[in-house]
Amino acid sequence: MFSRHSYLVVPTQTSVVNFPATMSPPSTAVVYDQHGPPDTITRVTKIPPVEMNENEVCVKMLAAPINPADINRIEGVYPVLPPTPTIGGWEGVGEIHSVGSAVMAFSPGDLVIHAAYLSGTWQTYVVEDQSLWYKIDKNTPIEYAATISVNPLSALRMLEDFVALKSGDTIVQNGATSIVGQCVIQLARIRGIHSINIIRDKPESDKIKEKLIKLGANKVFTESELEVKGVKNLLGDIPKPSLGLNCIGGNAANMVVKFLKQGGTMITYGGMSKKPITISTPYFIFKDISLKGYLLQEKNLDEAQYRCSIDHLLALVRAGILQYEYNF
Amino acid sequence: MFSRHSYLVVPTQTSVVNFPATMSPPSTAVVYDQHGPPDTITRVTKIPPVEMNENEVCVKMLAAPINPADINRIEGVYPVLPPTPTIGGWEGVGEIHSVGSAVMAFSPGDLVIHAAYLSGTWQTYVVEDQSLWYKIDKNTPIEYAATISVNPLSALRMLEDFVALKSGDTIVQNGATSIVGQCVIQLARIRGIHSINIIRDKPESDKIKEKLIKLGANKVFTESELEVKGVKNLLGDIPKPSLGLNCIGGNAANMVVKFLKQGGTMITYGGMSKKPITISTPYFIFKDISLKGYLLQEKNLDEAQYRCSIDHLLALVRAGILQYEYNF
Repeated sequence: MFSRHSYLVVPTQTSVVNFPATMSPPSTAVVYDQHGPPDTITRVTKIPPVEMNENEVCVKMLAAPINPADINRIEGVYPVLPPTPTIGGWEGVGEIHSVGSAVMAFSPGDLVIHAAYLSGTWQTYVVEDQSLWYKIDKNTPIEYAATISVNPLSALRMLEDFVALKSGDTIVQNGATSIVGQCVIQLARIRGIHSINIIRDKPESDKIKEKLIKLGANKVFTESELEVKGVKNLLGDIPKPSLGLNCIGGNAANMVVKFLKQGGTMITYGGMSKKPITISTPYFIFKDISLKGYLLQEKNLDEAQYRCSIDHLLALVRAGILQYEYNF
Repeated sequence: MFSRHSYLVVPTQTSVVNFPATMSPPSTAVVYDQHGPPDTITRVTKIPPVEMNENEVCVKMLAAPINPADINRIEGVYPVLPPTPTIGGWEGVGEIHSVGSAVMAFSPGDLVIHAAYLSGTWQTYVVEDQSLWYKIDKNTPIEYAATISVNPLSALRMLEDFVALKSGDTIVQNGATSIVGQCVIQLARIRGIHSINIIRDKPESDKIKEKLIKLGANKVFTESELEVKGVKNLLGDIPKPSLGLNCIGGNAANMVVKFLKQGGTMITYGGMSKKPITISTPYFIFKDISLKGYLLQEKNLDEAQYRCSIDHLLALVRAGILQYEYNF
């Protein structure tokens, strides 16, 4: 599903002021006509005003992030790709600029995000059916509203949808400094779940450990600290984890598996090392380990669950108990 | 749980005839006192008669196989080990030789197998509580009764307990000539499920293919025949499999995964190549492949399910539609 603007990409547009209510303002968009390297293939273009029908709203975009998956989509290496030419960006926040005559649920000034997974957030004005938008609390910080629906939502769903975790249980993850990783630590802590966190070896790893522990991490280890026999002895009185999250692959995935308790599950949601996951047979047969994958997409989450999850996450943000940084 | 005989291992025993009903005959057993190489560590020993209590039965063993897991248990490389000294063997068939005074459910001559997973089938007479035995149809061929509760039961449970398969679906397996593999082909065929089978490259592989196809295999490929791009093109109009079974590991496991459809599951129940399983990240994230393990043990199957499964399998055997050979 795309913005109607995305079918009307034209290279130039005379600037116009004070459009009638049924016309959108002209938009500026980041588009790509074919797949390739993002820095050469994308271009900024003007899109002329479009006539809005009675059920459509025009949203003025306020902020939209660049996620790694956006880059993969432009490169054409993502499994699900919108047909080109298209406008980039899969999440972001905007405010209602104007509404069609039959629209009752939105008023100009409302803060909105997409109600589902839709491309085309990298533009200044978007015209789409009102059903594709979702009103959020106006007191939500813009930078969180713009970034809540991909990484924090993935963190929440991975903690909820695979293993029935209860207070006192433990999870283990690598890539703990990613947005997902930061959210996992805090969402676990809120539910009374311990987190074991694995980070890369870096000169500043002591500082990173401190920051993660401040977020609520129970244990943080660098990869080299785990090059020992019997990693479970490092846990003290924390129970062995039943859920592991892997976004790295290679040896960092094995470290997650090593911590898991009998019958535990590791979810792979990324492969930053570009190395495969290698697991010996006894882990499957005798430790009953399961390996699964996670990809944020509509089929995993209906619209009600999506909205409910976003509401929950943004409420935590507004309460000051969920926070994250892009450059941790 | 062990036979009372197993606590009474003595090296010699005077032969006696016509024991009173409350005493068992002397038994001959294969025992091991510590873990090590089976050919040097096991010994055949005589066990004296034991006094039977009113709820016990004495079973004369008729046949008991040597399964690979029996060897692993003797070697001490199996994760769950009975305390030594112990009697070997985890499955087999016997007939009731005599019963305690309170036993109503069994009569001498009844054909019985263990009602759960118990060690100690490698002996001539076993005295145990009646609740540990399970009466089967006397018309069951002895060689099937003795071998039904490990390999064919694993084949059945793997087809039933992981993926909801329906007629017209497909499964894929490596190690297709094993007892489990032979049973999987036939149990799938009975349910209208297609099977894709992978075998090792051997001079006689054409003959093996023919035999497997006669059992009901839809497709049989040697590993080298699958060293091509796009293995799914080899399937013709057979749908892609939703379930894969792996007992080999290494490259043979990758071949199973390659065939799987989006969202498919591979179950590992053996690792005959002793090579690990290496899977690249996109299989988890974009193909949504799950990897799990299977081990036949009590926790996976309550006694009612166990009996029901065994009854089902033995009925198929007696009907002549389930058969298998140890040296395929």
